[in-house]
Amino acid sequence: MSTEPEARGLDAINPVMRQAWYIVATSGEVRGKPLPRRIHDKPLVVWRDGEGKARVFLDRCPHRNVPLSEGAVDGGGLRCGYHGWRFDGTGACVEIPALEGTPDAPARRATALPVVEQQGFVWVWTAPEVEPTCQPFRFACADDPRYTVVRKALRARGSLHATIENALDVPHTAFLHGGLFRRSDTPRKPIRCVIQRWHDRAECHFHGESAPTGLAARLLAPGGGELTHVDRFWLPSITEVEYSMGDDTHLVLNGACTPVTPWETIVFAVVSIRSPMPGWMVRPVVEPIALRIFDQDAVILAQQTDLLHTFGEARFASTEIDVLGAHILRMMRRVERGEHAEPSDQPETEKEVTMWL
Amino acid sequence: MSTEPEARGLDAINPVMRQAWYIVATSGEVRGKPLPRRIHDKPLVVWRDGEGKARVFLDRCPHRNVPLSEGAVDGGGLRCGYHGWRFDGTGACVEIPALEGTPDAPARRATALPVVEQQGFVWVWTAPEVEPTCQPFRFACADDPRYTVVRKALRARGSLHATIENALDVPHTAFLHGGLFRRSDTPRKPIRCVIQRWHDRAECHFHGESAPTGLAARLLAPGGGELTHVDRFWLPSITEVEYSMGDDTHLVLNGACTPVTPWETIVFAVVSIRSPMPGWMVRPVVEPIALRIFDQDAVILAQQTDLLHTFGEARFASTEIDVLGAHILRMMRRVERGEHAEPSDQPETEKEVTMWL
Amino acid sequence: MSTEPEARGLDAINPVMRQAWYIVATSGEVRGKPLPRRIHDKPLVVWRDGEGKARVFLDRCPHRNVPLSEGAVDGGGLRCGYHGWRFDGTGACVEIPALEGTPDAPARRATALPVVEQQGFVWVWTAPEVEPTCQPFRFACADDPRYTVVRKALRARGSLHATIENALDVPHTAFLHGGLFRRSDTPRKPIRCVIQRWHDRAECHFHGESAPTGLAARLLAPGGGELTHVDRFWLPSITEVEYSMGDDTHLVLNGACTPVTPWETIVFAVVSIRSPMPGWMVRPVVEPIALRIFDQDAVILAQQTDLLHTFGEARFASTEIDVLGAHILRMMRRVERGEHAEPSDQPETEKEVTMWL
Repeated sequence: MSTEPEARGLDAINPVMRQAWYIVATSGEVRGKPLPRRIHDKPLVVWRDGEGKARVFLDRCPHRNVPLSEGAVDGGGLRCGYHGWRFDGTGACVEIPALEGTPDAPARRATALPVVEQQGFVWVWTAPEVEPTCQPFRFACADDPRYTVVRKALRARGSLHATIENALDVPHTAFLHGGLFRRSDTPRKPIRCVIQRWHDRAECHFHGESAPTGLAARLLAPGGGELTHVDRFWLPSITEVEYSMGDDTHLVLNGACTPVTPWETIVFAVVSIRSPMPGWMVRPVVEPIALRIFDQDAVILAQQTDLLHTFGEARFASTEIDVLGAHILRMMRRVERGEHAEPSDQPETEKEVTMWL
Repeated sequence: MSTEPEARGLDAINPVMRQAWYIVATSGEVRGKPLPRRIHDKPLVVWRDGEGKARVFLDRCPHRNVPLSEGAVDGGGLRCGYHGWRFDGTGACVEIPALEGTPDAPARRATALPVVEQQGFVWVWTAPEVEPTCQPFRFACADDPRYTVVRKALRARGSLHATIENALDVPHTAFLHGGLFRRSDTPRKPIRCVIQRWHDRAECHFHGESAPTGLAARLLAPGGGELTHVDRFWLPSITEVEYSMGDDTHLVLNGACTPVTPWETIVFAVVSIRSPMPGWMVRPVVEPIALRIFDQDAVILAQQTDLLHTFGEARFASTEIDVLGAHILRMMRRVERGEHAEPSDQPETEKEVTMWL
Repeated sequence: MSTEPEARGLDAINPVMRQAWYIVATSGEVRGKPLPRRIHDKPLVVWRDGEGKARVFLDRCPHRNVPLSEGAVDGGGLRCGYHGWRFDGTGACVEIPALEGTPDAPARRATALPVVEQQGFVWVWTAPEVEPTCQPFRFACADDPRYTVVRKALRARGSLHATIENALDVPHTAFLHGGLFRRSDTPRKPIRCVIQRWHDRAECHFHGESAPTGLAARLLAPGGGELTHVDRFWLPSITEVEYSMGDDTHLVLNGACTPVTPWETIVFAVVSIRSPMPGWMVRPVVEPIALRIFDQDAVILAQQTDLLHTFGEARFASTEIDVLGAHILRMMRRVERGEHAEPSDQPETEKEVTMWL
């Protein structure tokens, strides 16, 4: 008979970080028509004003509660399709057809959210009542001309935390993705893992890992050389897997995760690669493998989400090789409670474990 | 940053008036087979007894809770399909196969609701425990041989109040239905609107409105002449839009609205037209335009309903040209609370505003 | 105006008996792949270990809450598809890939439930924290070589109680199944019914019933003879309808009912027949009639379930010819409350009524 792990409510494993920047769309998606999106289950409308500036409003006309995304961009403003109310980029009401007198009034404004557009992404700050306290994340190598950059928006039916833990979880790769980049049938050897957590990030360095032996790896890093591997998480929702092989191969896989609903996450993946392989070959080699891996993860995340809802509770039994998941949950819950740790260069915790890979 | 309109719960904008007459079916729909219907989300069965009288019961056999509408009309009664219990038009149980002794007993009766059949409609009083306090609405011109009468049952995924407000809302017509009967691209002029509310009805007279210029209008009223326009609401759920053009054209559009569920409404539309145009031409001219207008309204109402549920709250910012909606909501809430204003010929409120059409 | 039967909550008519044996699968269904099942809305996984023993676990990996039924039977154990954790037949964790040190720990065990496999069925005890207090039901004639045995798993969208009451309800058969085995158009005659209830079972003997006259009956019992008929219920969820015609025809219809969800029941039907008719003819004669009857019952049960949910309450008006349903509900509620009546050979209640069939 089992002694089951302690039961926790689903909210306890799914913190909500409302005061945060998330990617709401790629720059290319925001064109002539207003774009309906959702973050934290709140409908948003993304559009460009007369000066080409990306704008994000709550997707609700203050007059009669119909979605502004069903209206149209018109005269540099956003116009509702029911009574034709028109709003400028700040949310001010600038036209009410048939009304005598001035259209704008506090209660007649659309709710605008802070927006930053950079590196091909539109980021939104999801707490309209609070000024942003930081800047959105920048992808370090994405603007560097030496790198080939592949972008992809991927949808997972998993919570923000489960999706992030999965993206940074090493033990499942040899099993679930067996054959794709780690093998489950070759002899394993001990890897030393150094885990550190700071106030706003956590990372794990893997020491002693063998270079992958698959075709893709040999194409990307023909010269071989020593492998270094670091996994990183930044609050609120950024993952990074970094590999270096020798001097001339560098691979950075970032995922900027957006909580669409409590149980659905979009991963805006940005893969930056510097390699002796010619740039035009990188994408066709990397993309099919990455998508296959992501598909397998998406299936597992959906199974986990369904099961958690069927049971109505979570029972997780972690081991020491679940290196980052528990740290990330702790950091996310701190943000949910509005606690802000003192910034410091010193890690809050540091630990070393052995993983057989 | 917006100052959003005050948040209200969805119940506050969706009053339930249980002690009321609603149309449950057209007379023609009630034939040999029992007809399943729903009002206020309660299942009803409509059928005709041995004398041809329309009957409405709660659609539940008192024995084992299966729907009587899945049974059959048999021997002037309604018979359940599970054990064959049979009920007469009053709901009394008149047969229980296999039972020795008398079938009827208080707990074995079907729940019958008061019914009135008139002008081709079956009306039901939805509070079986209370005697009706009034008579169902009569459509004033529908029996007058000088009028061509078009009837249509239309379904909207909107609350009773939202559907009624939409039917009597003028400003959206120029925008949402632009081109169909009001134009949004011609110069507007000021219209004087006189709004009055009595204990059981509200109406708005529009003064100075130009006659419509479309083809349909010219066919219906070839002689032109002065336009008069009045919009009316009667408790609990009747709308009327009345146009007169000159002496010989008179158009009355009634909607008797039935709340099927809290967020789904059937509009039994009765359009009565007296015009120099020959009667056989009226329907083919009027019906396609009316259906197109209704389709556009149904799309907006569904968008509004979805958005209200996504946000879980309502925030409405009204202006002075939303002339009847707020009055209607107030009257409906009064009925919901069981308050009955003193009947009087004097209006409770009267107001004048300008609308640019 | 009706005096409706007393309203009861849906829970009151749908007791949950967790400490009980239910059939979770037929023996033949449990082969190489883990089988996902559900009882009382709890996901279970059924599989065979290295010795061929049937095993049932909660269908949840204790590590990261993904369903074990999506994994694989491997090396005599059950392996999760996410990180490759492997469990033996008792639920102990025997392998965690990549982990240094021993895999088993109390919190890392899968939750195993007691299992008995007999007569071609896998039974599970659904309260893992309590030792079974009894043995699963045995079908009395199913191992007897003189009997032809037909088995069938049938799914009804009805509660456990409603499905069982339906299976043992006589008055509806003449009406709903009219023509299939009882006729509704022949003269009825009074049948004496003796109803008895013990602590763990209830039964009704029918005296004076005419032998059925349909083709199937004449094939099964060509010699005619006196008919005896007894309906039985055993806690928690076994039904039996037993007919004898003369000396050489004996028909026992058992239903072992499994509550998949509160409103969905699987009936594992076991029909045992001894007849002068050759064995190879029995199945083609009996099966189509039985399936047609079950289909009609399944439709009614689904209608009843939908209606109960629409109204959100139950109002049942029973009569004296509803002979077993109320007794069964009372017995099930006693088990739900954890009350155990003293075993005794004397019935707790005994009653006689007349039914006209």
